[in-house]
Amino acid sequence: MEMDSEVAADITVKRELSQFATEFEPVLRGMLPREEHPRTDLVEAMSYATVGGGKYLRPYIVRCSAEMFGVPPLSSMRAGSAVEAVHAYSLVHDDLPALDNDDLRRGRPTCHCAFGEATAILAGDGLLTLAFEILAHRETHASTATRLELIASLAHAAGASGMIGGQMIDLDCENRTVDFTTAGILARKKTGALFSFATSAGAILGRASELERQALSEFGSDMGLAFQIVDDILDVEGNERLIGKRAGKDADAGKATFVSILGLEKAKSELDRTVRQAVGHLEPFDCRADSLRSIVEFIASRDR
Amino acid sequence: MEMDSEVAADITVKRELSQFATEFEPVLRGMLPREEHPRTDLVEAMSYATVGGGKYLRPYIVRCSAEMFGVPPLSSMRAGSAVEAVHAYSLVHDDLPALDNDDLRRGRPTCHCAFGEATAILAGDGLLTLAFEILAHRETHASTATRLELIASLAHAAGASGMIGGQMIDLDCENRTVDFTTAGILARKKTGALFSFATSAGAILGRASELERQALSEFGSDMGLAFQIVDDILDVEGNERLIGKRAGKDADAGKATFVSILGLEKAKSELDRTVRQAVGHLEPFDCRADSLRSIVEFIASRDR
Repeated sequence: MEMDSEVAADITVKRELSQFATEFEPVLRGMLPREEHPRTDLVEAMSYATVGGGKYLRPYIVRCSAEMFGVPPLSSMRAGSAVEAVHAYSLVHDDLPALDNDDLRRGRPTCHCAFGEATAILAGDGLLTLAFEILAHRETHASTATRLELIASLAHAAGASGMIGGQMIDLDCENRTVDFTTAGILARKKTGALFSFATSAGAILGRASELERQALSEFGSDMGLAFQIVDDILDVEGNERLIGKRAGKDADAGKATFVSILGLEKAKSELDRTVRQAVGHLEPFDCRADSLRSIVEFIASRDR
Repeated sequence: MEMDSEVAADITVKRELSQFATEFEPVLRGMLPREEHPRTDLVEAMSYATVGGGKYLRPYIVRCSAEMFGVPPLSSMRAGSAVEAVHAYSLVHDDLPALDNDDLRRGRPTCHCAFGEATAILAGDGLLTLAFEILAHRETHASTATRLELIASLAHAAGASGMIGGQMIDLDCENRTVDFTTAGILARKKTGALFSFATSAGAILGRASELERQALSEFGSDMGLAFQIVDDILDVEGNERLIGKRAGKDADAGKATFVSILGLEKAKSELDRTVRQAVGHLEPFDCRADSLRSIVEFIASRDR
């Protein structure tokens, strides 16, 4: 009996992700600064928020996109470390009492619950700063122009026009009616911008053509949107133990989600449509993009 | 009757700073992103925290150090905008309830008092990210290697080994006995690291020798230490109306200051010693460094 292809992709990506994590985690750990002052736990908090617990999905995406262009692993691991540092910082700040006020993340106490709010704010700041320090270093890529492109691209994705802009719209959307268009803009900024950086980082590192970068960037944005729709579906249908945070939280907080706007069934068809659109951007790459295709299928079918 | 030379320097620097501010402020304003989403005040909060009210001392220092090496004003204004964005973000986060819990800054409500805590956290994040976006842009300098050096240098100054590391030590030092050595390390990280970036940015932009960069970097670190000693003296002796924040606040909070460790008189002689040491680093530059000499005298004699 043959396995359903989606289930097969899911199992393959899970295995690949877990294999990747064993390679990536020591590299990421090596990027973190050493604690210089014996009495403070800044670096411990930065490490707590970054290493262990996460799936390293974004760095894995960087690796897959980098392999399409023959980029050496050290380069893609370093760019992956930068994007993971930004992702981790965004979770630390987003979990703060003034924002989402979450006490559980990846099945563990959130950073501010474990280290206190002040340390969590500073650890987040330190991680964001670290991301740019990593990218600026010559080991990331021999070409100065390429490193600068990565930096400009990450800053744009993470800043006021990207992820932070999305967080801000998210804040504004609490407890009021949000339309489908706004929810899409929000998801593409809050989640899609960083995915878009991850998918195009390989193209930047591999000095691919502008057209190829653009296609991968749009693929990442669609994948981020798909990721957010799945998040909203899991918030309703998910198993708290599996997703590692409290289910139903967004709905309780009066946050507009794709499910609250569209209803569960329509949210699921919007997910399918978004996945098809994402995969469409990969056509020019033929089978070179198979690992990216598997990731988007994995995201669409994830249960946590 | 001749004016005391220190008073004369003070008046000159004040005039220069005020003249510089009229040139710099429009440039800085132009670097801020446009509000893309009509309902959010992210960019307004970023602008509130950055433009107006500040002396723009750090960008002015960048300009002075840049002029020593014939660097065009556009380059130094952009590097100055980056350092001012980092400085502004650090104040926004430092003022938060979980950290210093300040409600007054530059004579106005702090960012979180004016916009709410969540927006202030995100605005700070946006400003830190913006700093790197500014530096990565080709208008900052024609050479990609130079832009990367600025980015690496700013990330190092602002991160866990620099400013954030200093903030963290500061947190740890609340309500416990701190020795003079620790207070010095704290001040050099929390305040000196960013000054050090500002004083050496001109040398980086001007592609000065490693020795010259090093001398200017150490000058900046000493100047930052001097700045912090003056801050502590003003916290005891200062006029609340002039300094634009509540006087005696640090002492009330049980924070160790140079005055609480050394006493007022010894703190003042430590200030003199630090200023002499700072100026010593400028010797190789002869009269080219006169504007930097005036700044350190201005800092030592400032009343706010």
